[in-house]
Amino acid sequence: MTVAAKKLLLAVTPGTYGPILEPSVEQEMAALCGVVKAPADVGKMTPEQYGRLLAESGAEIVVTCWGSPRLTLAALRGAPHLKYMIHLAGTVRAYVEKEAIEAGLIVTNWGGAIARTVAEAALMMILCALRRVAAYQMELHIRKGWRSPHDDKVRSLFERSVGIHGLGTISKELIRLLKPFGVRIEAYSPHAPDSDFAELGISRQRSLRELYARNDVISVHASKTAENCHIVNAELLAAMKDGAAIVNTARGAIIDTEALVAELRKGRIQAALDVFEEEPLPPDHPLRGLENCLLLPHCGGPTPDRRVDMGRQGLRNLKRYLAGEPLDAIVTPAKYDLIT
Amino acid sequence: MTVAAKKLLLAVTPGTYGPILEPSVEQEMAALCGVVKAPADVGKMTPEQYGRLLAESGAEIVVTCWGSPRLTLAALRGAPHLKYMIHLAGTVRAYVEKEAIEAGLIVTNWGGAIARTVAEAALMMILCALRRVAAYQMELHIRKGWRSPHDDKVRSLFERSVGIHGLGTISKELIRLLKPFGVRIEAYSPHAPDSDFAELGISRQRSLRELYARNDVISVHASKTAENCHIVNAELLAAMKDGAAIVNTARGAIIDTEALVAELRKGRIQAALDVFEEEPLPPDHPLRGLENCLLLPHCGGPTPDRRVDMGRQGLRNLKRYLAGEPLDAIVTPAKYDLIT
Repeated sequence: MTVAAKKLLLAVTPGTYGPILEPSVEQEMAALCGVVKAPADVGKMTPEQYGRLLAESGAEIVVTCWGSPRLTLAALRGAPHLKYMIHLAGTVRAYVEKEAIEAGLIVTNWGGAIARTVAEAALMMILCALRRVAAYQMELHIRKGWRSPHDDKVRSLFERSVGIHGLGTISKELIRLLKPFGVRIEAYSPHAPDSDFAELGISRQRSLRELYARNDVISVHASKTAENCHIVNAELLAAMKDGAAIVNTARGAIIDTEALVAELRKGRIQAALDVFEEEPLPPDHPLRGLENCLLLPHCGGPTPDRRVDMGRQGLRNLKRYLAGEPLDAIVTPAKYDLIT
Repeated sequence: MTVAAKKLLLAVTPGTYGPILEPSVEQEMAALCGVVKAPADVGKMTPEQYGRLLAESGAEIVVTCWGSPRLTLAALRGAPHLKYMIHLAGTVRAYVEKEAIEAGLIVTNWGGAIARTVAEAALMMILCALRRVAAYQMELHIRKGWRSPHDDKVRSLFERSVGIHGLGTISKELIRLLKPFGVRIEAYSPHAPDSDFAELGISRQRSLRELYARNDVISVHASKTAENCHIVNAELLAAMKDGAAIVNTARGAIIDTEALVAELRKGRIQAALDVFEEEPLPPDHPLRGLENCLLLPHCGGPTPDRRVDMGRQGLRNLKRYLAGEPLDAIVTPAKYDLIT
């Protein structure tokens, strides 16, 4: 006698299978649940069509990812058997209405599964900013030169001070990668409890201005909320030390780009940016050509070779759910707006 | 009653004072020894003139650095009171004849004091090669583009395999920096004892070809010896895995540049180079413009802000010498040719 398997709807686009949802992970899911695959055009469904699919599937669990349709409160009401949404990516706003979560739908996301690759990008960008890698590519590849007037300003990360703006899963992974460099770390976060700082062995900085003024390196990991829009303004940038470096792997809108361009033009600070207020970065954007600014096209993480970690995190949470164990990376209504 | 202080000659060029020999370090040396400063033009002295200076100074200890004159066996014979040369930099060949060391002169160099900054450069260059930073600078800064055909080839260092070619002070520091990335490390070194591998927790690879064929990342730290000239040849480069990265922070001549250019032109592997067979790199060199090759102008380390570590290492060794304690980083005749 077997218990009827719970039904699981894979509401992911065809491109998700393979790079994110490995065959072995899909097979394990099928061994645990009655798996139904959404049609290949699931990404083009309206919320209403998606609602009908959810209702007809009888699924208790739905797996979503980049390109999946949006789950509305109305769709949830039409599919009362649906209890749990495993979102394989990060930000859920485009994929589920906050009201559906408030109505009781459990939602989890990639949590810390991909945080380490973004932290890796942040570490690389910190090193590149301190060592002026963008300027040297221009000098050696384009101008066919060698030494530059900036040679005596190249800096090491060893024994420097690092200010972390925002304390979430990514900055926690970054702190782990920074340890071998013997840096002094302080972080600013209105949300993180004191226990987080104690566990990480870092100082709490309660003044954002002091964070920017006191440290050799600033790494931005703040959430994309209305209050954080342009929170890194001209005043904070002007407060930075001469030769200091600012790195942004979070969201472009956190920094007032116009103010950053103005500060970078003075040649006083270094920057490395993976995210921008407007993406793709417009061809004529004034950041282009600023040699004290390393530019990357929002590829911090997860890197293509590590997107399998997203599917593996989803499988781990599915197993926990089926076993009645606590889930990892639950997106509560309070967290809904904080995820970058 | 005080013991007559030993005499110490500072045979360093004026540019050494400050960035390398901090005032506080110089003061501590003066408190420990009878310090004589060489004239400002010491760097232009012939070996004969330098020999006379050493003889007349009566110094038991001489401190040298980049730009100091060469200490010959003849000069040593003319200054029998000279026992110990504290060289603040790395390679000593330009600054002392091997025969002088064989005749009993004790020589120490910067040892591991600056190794960590070169290791830091190597880590940064590994990350840059895997994430195609040089190509993205061309794309975003020069071509004013955004995404590139290489986007799906961006890779993370996490859980990759790293092959270390040569096991000295720099690669040991690199292994420390690599630890948080959960990489599998194997190293090739004909010189390092098995105990080094055991202490570092890495595998010994006895075949150089296997080292190049098996690993996702190759970091070159071999010595600049005659046998290592062009040891990284077309065959080793062709053996590298598709998408693998090779990083050179050691010496340019270790890699057959012509073979590397040919391999890079195929677009199959990534490289990041801080050192070249000819430096400065000639303006028309074929490496320039190859977007799968990050180029830096031999600035791996020590970075200007950490050159103080060179002077501090010299002071530590001076204190050990005066106390009759074992010295760090002694340049034996056997090591004389191995230091890169």
